[in-house]
This record gives sequence, structure tokens and C-alpha cells, in this order.
Amino acid sequence: GVRILSPKSAIAPTGTWSLGARAGDFVFVAGMRGIDPASNAMLDGEESRIRQAFKNMETIAESEGARLTDCVRIVVYVSDMARLRPLVNKVQEELWGGGPYPPRTILQVARLNQDDIFEVEGTFYAPVKG
Amino acid sequence: GVRILSPKSAIAPTGTWSLGARAGDFVFVAGMRGIDPASNAMLDGEESRIRQAFKNMETIAESEGARLTDCVRIVVYVSDMARLRPLVNKVQEELWGGGPYPPRTILQVARLNQDDIFEVEGTFYAPVKG
Amino acid sequence: GVRILSPKSAIAPTGTWSLGARAGDFVFVAGMRGIDPASNAMLDGEESRIRQAFKNMETIAESEGARLTDCVRIVVYVSDMARLRPLVNKVQEELWGGGPYPPRTILQVARLNQDDIFEVEGTFYAPVKG
Repeated sequence: GVRILSPKSAIAPTGTWSLGARAGDFVFVAGMRGIDPASNAMLDGEESRIRQAFKNMETIAESEGARLTDCVRIVVYVSDMARLRPLVNKVQEELWGGGPYPPRTILQVARLNQDDIFEVEGTFYAPVKG
Repeated sequence: GVRILSPKSAIAPTGTWSLGARAGDFVFVAGMRGIDPASNAMLDGEESRIRQAFKNMETIAESEGARLTDCVRIVVYVSDMARLRPLVNKVQEELWGGGPYPPRTILQVARLNQDDIFEVEGTFYAPVKG
Repeated sequence: GVRILSPKSAIAPTGTWSLGARAGDFVFVAGMRGIDPASNAMLDGEESRIRQAFKNMETIAESEGARLTDCVRIVVYVSDMARLRPLVNKVQEELWGGGPYPPRTILQVARLNQDDIFEVEGTFYAPVKG
């Protein structure tokens, strides 16, 4: 059935949620924020925090053999569309090496947990060898 | 192809949407709110309403053989992060029996339908017997 | 692995995102807004813009053999729940020909890209022939 993921190098969940789950050929990663896995604290700096959130997502996906190019969807939540969308684009360009990029939906919401500025939720395809 | 779900014990949709859909090994449940299936009215009390929303989701998933532990993702939408996130955690702890829990993204949005306080959208894995 | 979609008749992405992706039997379409594929500009008129957003989603799904009735989930984001939800219902009734409709979650968010009024994100089932 569903396999809950908790790779050692990832952040630690602090509530009633898990980092990710595998089911069949898909990997579902929880909304990730720019939290340092070493200290479990939010990073300083908007760009650094956005990059770390993507890297936290990547860590969980990679633990199941999926790379960023195996992403089938991201949903990006920001606290300020005008200021943060350009930073998200910049960080994605860097991490995806110029593309191609996954389908994306980007939204400014009313509030994120801990009044954070950025959260990303990713779904990945990682076919089971067989 | 896609099979639209409408289990008898579930709430009744009031617009251009269905309760859920099965496709392949996955079950997709529409955003559920704390509506009483008997009266189709919103429950009183924040904690009761949150619990009912999860139970409405569970009813639809169970009609396809999926339990709460077969959930691969929930997205939780609240009207007030500070006040409602602790209640969501409490209700999930109760319903999932201490865990493990599915990956979760929790967001405060600007408004839910009927000015409601909570909505949860779940995706489940329920492999077709074969 | 993942196949990124870019059908000729669709809108052109303007940032670090793709229109859609196929993985296995599923097609994931990015959040679509009411942009005219001919001019890549937003349509005038709320109802026209909502209809165009759904049609942009449909174009991408159809390029992989999926019709609107093969949709397993939509998430609808609006800038004003009270004013726009009835329009969304009206347009869906027209496009889905009276139903059945896919599971839906509808949310009023704080802001969409370009201060738009409507965005829809769809997931489709389109089994690979074989």
C-alpha cells in the first residue's frame, strides 16, 4: 500500500503530518518550507529560504529515486506575489538548470504556517523497477 | 476510464462538482467541509466541523476500499491558521490513532465557500484487485 | 519518465513552468488562466476569461487524448468567492454538458498572478494504450 517516507537527511515533521508518501509509481511530498534540516529552524533571507524549501522537497523525492526533472506538478504558495515570484523563478532556473520545468500553479495565500513567505508542494513520478 | 463516486451515506453535492473520482489505483476526493450528511447543513462548533469534514472525506474514500492510512496527500485550508491549526492536529491525532499521518500542506486562504472555517482535500491509493 | 507537454495550439508559458506533464496514465495540467492563445493576453470580461481558462486546460489535456470527462480533480482559485463562484458553475455546466462533473475544490486566495480573477488546475486520466 502506501509507504510513508522519512529520509534521515530531511527535516523533522513537527505535527500530525509526514514528509512524503510513495504509492505505486508516484511520490507525494508534503508542503516544504525553507527550514534547515540541521537546526530545524527557518533560514534567514528570502532567496535562501526559497532555495532551501525546494531542496527539502528534492531530498524527499531523491530518497525514492526521483530527480527534479521527474516532477509532474508543483504548487507554490507565497505571501507576496509581486516580490517573491521573481525570486521563485530565479531559484527554479538555477535548480532545474534552465529547464524544462514542471507544470506550476503559483498563489498568494492569506497566511502560511509560522507566517512564512514560501511553501512548495511537489508530486513526482518514480516508476517502481520491475 | 474515470469513475465518479457518489456513495449513499455521503453528503450531497450542491453544484457543478462530484464528491470523488476513481482512476486506476487512485481515488481523488473533492474538498470536504464539516457538513452533516443527514441534514446537509454545516455543523456547529469548530472542532466538530473539522472532524466531520475529515469523516466526510473518509466516507468517500472507504466506498472505494481506502482507509485513512491509504491517504497519500491532504491539503488543508483554514480561515485562521493560529486558532485552527492546533484543532486540526488534535482531530487528526484522534482519527489517525497517533499516526503515521499523510503528507500535508496547510494554508490560510482568503475565503472558503459559505465563509466556512475548514476544508480538506484528500488523495488516496486503493489498488484495484487483480 | 515524465513527458513535458507543449501543444502548438496552447498558450505560451512565460516563466519557469510548463503547461503540463504526462506520467504513466495521468496528465497534470498547470494552473490555467483566461489567456488568449492567439495574443497571449488576458481576455476581457469575467465569464469569458473563466471559459477561456477551462478551454486552455482542455487543449492541453486533449493533446494527450483526455476529454473534460476524464478529469479526476480540479482546484479552482478565485479572487472573489461570492461574485465568481456562480459564474464558474455556469461555465462548467456549459462545458461539461450538464455533468457528471469532476471533484472540485474552490478557494478564494489573496492574489493570483497578474491580479487575475480565476485560475484552474486540473488532473486527468488518460490510460496509455497497450
